[in-house]
Amino acid sequence: MDKSSIPKATLGRIPRYLTYLREISPERVPHISATTIAKALKLGEVQVRKDLSMVSGAGRPRVGYDTETLVSQLEDCLGYNQMTLAVLVGAGKLGSALLQYDGFRHYGVKIAAAFDSNEHALAAASKTEILPMHRFSDFCRENNVELGIITVGEASAQEVCDRMVASGIKAIWNFAPCKLQVPDDVLLQNESLALSLAHLRNRMSRN
Amino acid sequence: MDKSSIPKATLGRIPRYLTYLREISPERVPHISATTIAKALKLGEVQVRKDLSMVSGAGRPRVGYDTETLVSQLEDCLGYNQMTLAVLVGAGKLGSALLQYDGFRHYGVKIAAAFDSNEHALAAASKTEILPMHRFSDFCRENNVELGIITVGEASAQEVCDRMVASGIKAIWNFAPCKLQVPDDVLLQNESLALSLAHLRNRMSRN
Repeated sequence: MDKSSIPKATLGRIPRYLTYLREISPERVPHISATTIAKALKLGEVQVRKDLSMVSGAGRPRVGYDTETLVSQLEDCLGYNQMTLAVLVGAGKLGSALLQYDGFRHYGVKIAAAFDSNEHALAAASKTEILPMHRFSDFCRENNVELGIITVGEASAQEVCDRMVASGIKAIWNFAPCKLQVPDDVLLQNESLALSLAHLRNRMSRN
Repeated sequence: MDKSSIPKATLGRIPRYLTYLREISPERVPHISATTIAKALKLGEVQVRKDLSMVSGAGRPRVGYDTETLVSQLEDCLGYNQMTLAVLVGAGKLGSALLQYDGFRHYGVKIAAAFDSNEHALAAASKTEILPMHRFSDFCRENNVELGIITVGEASAQEVCDRMVASGIKAIWNFAPCKLQVPDDVLLQNESLALSLAHLRNRMSRN
């Protein structure tokens, strides 16, 4: 099955499958069934079966999956063996929160550097290097950066977006609360936290 | 139609409808059709028709919608006339970024106060009051807070969640990267930024 069509919910469970399978260790347990995994993780068996079939096809009857193969197929899904390099523009509060967050590498994305035009932002302590904007395009080209994260305000978001596209970036994750224009071959994903909150609020009124 | 079943995508377009309808002003344009709105906002007519029918039923043939009624129905959807009060626990980088964000009130949610156990966080400059945790329960009860936002780390998220539930909060928006246990009558919405990024990365490999 085409790995790229894996739905978000399945993707979200893959780290749990991986953690479990690594814990039981492929050497000790060379084969494992969807049933065993479902029980151990307290998930529905149908769900686990469906998830695994998307990643690895059906398990062998009465034998299950080859544990080692399954681990590496799950890792492939999350891009473990092919890290995607990202840059972030806008090292304000939200940007810094994202830089601080450790979880992206579990999903095959590494933020290689952050960029900002503000001197205070450049001077801030950060695990990730914060560079001035004039170095942006060279950095992206030299490092083959594929993904750009926009955490600047609405006013400069389109400008940053254009700069990303001109620097060869193929996918953009936008946190600015505005519509951005990108060429057809560039993927754009808008993250609207306000909308998530609105959705929760709306579910509340149902209760 | 039951307003609470409005899908997230429709919800996301409502602020644009509202902005437009207020601009044209109900006094000058007492009736308006879905077609006119669709053209003005460069949206598909079918989509606009569907969105509005969820909020206001079908427009009158050849007349359209009563503009003023439509505006107030759209406002109701976003909770304009019934602000939901929220509190946030964890005024670190992500928490501060959310506090700084101005967009939530457009969706009927007001963050009334933030709480933190850290002195530095308490001393930080913020438009929203940052209070010590020992005042949490009293504040929630006195102000009828209905919604709690968790932006603390994984280690203390469940404790914060339990405290929210004990203080009468009925819906929780969780940013901590862990599963939380809540009673059946409490709504829980997990926000996984890592998962959103993983989804984008996964879409990239399709291109």
